[in-house]
Amino acid sequence: MKKEVLILLLPHYADWEVSFAAATLNNQIQNIESKYSIKTVGITADPIPSIGGLTILPDYSIENIPTNYVALLLIGGMSWCTTDRQPTTLTEKLIPFVQNTIDRNIIVGAICDATTFLGANGWLNNCAHTSNTLSDLKKVAGSRYSNEKNYQNQQAVSDKNIITANGTAYLEFSKEILSALNAYSKNDIETHYDFYKHGYYEAMKKHGVAKGI
Amino acid sequence: MKKEVLILLLPHYADWEVSFAAATLNNQIQNIESKYSIKTVGITADPIPSIGGLTILPDYSIENIPTNYVALLLIGGMSWCTTDRQPTTLTEKLIPFVQNTIDRNIIVGAICDATTFLGANGWLNNCAHTSNTLSDLKKVAGSRYSNEKNYQNQQAVSDKNIITANGTAYLEFSKEILSALNAYSKNDIETHYDFYKHGYYEAMKKHGVAKGI
Repeated sequence: MKKEVLILLLPHYADWEVSFAAATLNNQIQNIESKYSIKTVGITADPIPSIGGLTILPDYSIENIPTNYVALLLIGGMSWCTTDRQPTTLTEKLIPFVQNTIDRNIIVGAICDATTFLGANGWLNNCAHTSNTLSDLKKVAGSRYSNEKNYQNQQAVSDKNIITANGTAYLEFSKEILSALNAYSKNDIETHYDFYKHGYYEAMKKHGVAKGI
Repeated sequence: MKKEVLILLLPHYADWEVSFAAATLNNQIQNIESKYSIKTVGITADPIPSIGGLTILPDYSIENIPTNYVALLLIGGMSWCTTDRQPTTLTEKLIPFVQNTIDRNIIVGAICDATTFLGANGWLNNCAHTSNTLSDLKKVAGSRYSNEKNYQNQQAVSDKNIITANGTAYLEFSKEILSALNAYSKNDIETHYDFYKHGYYEAMKKHGVAKGI
């Protein structure tokens, strides 16, 4: 029985930010099968459009989630910050769910604008973290965010069960999640990263023939 | 009225191979709005699972496609080569559709295993092209493929309305499609590519502050 990793998708989520984390956890890398499976979560059970124009049917609505998931990933996109502030209709349903996940010491990953949601609820105040930019995070998160000293100018940061990344860091986000879940060996995670970061021909110089693409 | 780009998705398609082409064509880059919109196509109207465990509702089934699309993108995944050969159930419906698209001089893009489908139907015999590897292409395409001399060891190749790429070349595939469709200025396409290829901090050194992430 594979362990479930939940991925929360809001309307107009960023296709590229979910793609590698989902594919590497739900399937395989380097011909090693994953111990995990991906389930998608919507605020409701309605179909969810992506930025790229794909329409997703979520596996669960937020009221209908099993309790035994092992990680929750919050994907960026155009619904997290409709103005400078978090929209209440969104956060009302999400806040208790994410708070419960954090209280149970379950891994929470957030990429791009989803990081500002963590900041706005005080969940970045006790860990090293990143976002798209510090000024963006401070503007959206407001006074609940008080941990500027632990903001890191890195593609992705993993600390105390919280993984954060900027919107160009879809591969580094995926790598930190695979590592935090101990999904594959360190060597397999690095090799997969190199092939998809640098491309087939560059990675071949270092690693030899690819084990599948 | 935006022009439609069709994306064909087969069961267990590769999430990462569709993500950038879809997002950049359906939405914007560098804060410039796209002239195009993405519509997804399934062989039938049934929901389509991705490798990453997402479930897509296609916009069109293959019998139900408008004629005025401007490009067709064939996304790789686990349905193109169930054995060493192309499965007949798949190709029966697809071959006339793709042949018609090529006959009308409409741009066709194929990434990863979808390139072997082009090879197996003789559609790579008059253009420079690439695939995951030449040996893989020759094995799956068989005797219908006779253009080894124009195989290029590159991430992506664009020639005479045919764009091909390997499975690690999701960004280069997207770049060639945007260029072939003249979707944005050359400079905006390169800048967007640099941010997503090299990441926020590396790209900032060259381009300055990002126009959105």
